[in-house]
Amino acid sequence: MSEQVHALTRAERRRRTEDRILVAARDLFVRLGYERTTIRAIAAAAEVDPSLVMQYFGSKDRLFRQAASLPQDKDLTGDPEGLTEHLMTMLGLKLGGLPQASLTALRSALTHPEAAERVRQVQAHHVSQIGAGMAGMAGEDAELRAALIVAIMLGVTIERHLIELGPLRDASYDEITELLRPCLETLTRPG
Amino acid sequence: MSEQVHALTRAERRRRTEDRILVAARDLFVRLGYERTTIRAIAAAAEVDPSLVMQYFGSKDRLFRQAASLPQDKDLTGDPEGLTEHLMTMLGLKLGGLPQASLTALRSALTHPEAAERVRQVQAHHVSQIGAGMAGMAGEDAELRAALIVAIMLGVTIERHLIELGPLRDASYDEITELLRPCLETLTRPG
Repeated sequence: MSEQVHALTRAERRRRTEDRILVAARDLFVRLGYERTTIRAIAAAAEVDPSLVMQYFGSKDRLFRQAASLPQDKDLTGDPEGLTEHLMTMLGLKLGGLPQASLTALRSALTHPEAAERVRQVQAHHVSQIGAGMAGMAGEDAELRAALIVAIMLGVTIERHLIELGPLRDASYDEITELLRPCLETLTRPG
Repeated sequence: MSEQVHALTRAERRRRTEDRILVAARDLFVRLGYERTTIRAIAAAAEVDPSLVMQYFGSKDRLFRQAASLPQDKDLTGDPEGLTEHLMTMLGLKLGGLPQASLTALRSALTHPEAAERVRQVQAHHVSQIGAGMAGMAGEDAELRAALIVAIMLGVTIERHLIELGPLRDASYDEITELLRPCLETLTRPG
């Protein structure tokens, strides 16, 4: 019994440390972009040893992918401001650059059916999460609204990093989010 | 002199016939989608012989690409309603399906630098046209707003036709435009 309590406490402690690392990683990825963010800087911001970051997340790539996911918990539900902020963070992560593995996955998704299936699964998961976050607000079309949000983020990411369309390649994170926020809010805050 | 007048008149007559064909083509592509629209139906709607459509536009692919372009003239300038309607028509054309050549070009754009350059040029042209259409309304960030509009259309097109994300693959044209119109209006009608 006391061993189980002890185990839970360790699991809980680990979860909190992971959360602190994820928050620090998000902040740095958004501010500095993927390339210029180091594991060492994330560890320093989270006040942990860099080896712990590697032990918990495996690599900068994998840490990025986890940082770019929406929270797994119920935090999003019924709070349009919170949802919009999470979406802006996700967008910020994508605007600041993507790991080579993610860019490759994106390219392959459009040319290889198996890769498309993987991207579709990840995106469908995002759609459910965002859709759940809008439940009660958006009604029946929550899933379609969520899918449009995912599509908009994909389009902006592809234009900035793969097609390198001039104005989107050169604009700052702030310029882009300032224009895109009202646009996304028409989808997260219906009515 | 009279020969020149005659030549101008013929050129003008041809331009008007081409316009009529383009209007009919847009209408059918949006209502029926690319696959189900035939040259014969377009010719009937435009009240011309099908051979004239082929003579003027070469192929259904090329007619589609011209129908999906924005008007070359000054019609867009300073009229937010007109601009939004044009954007909705462009979106409708893309939602209804794309010619195989366009899908292939889109796929290649993300994997081959030369193809990316071609897509970038076409999109940069759209950005200037849409940006010019917003001149006086949007001020300095007109180009970035236009680029975001192009990015949103790209994202929705890719999700629907290449990744086939469930809600976007299955939704009707009307469902999608109803949700996307207010979103695009935040970009075409600032302030």
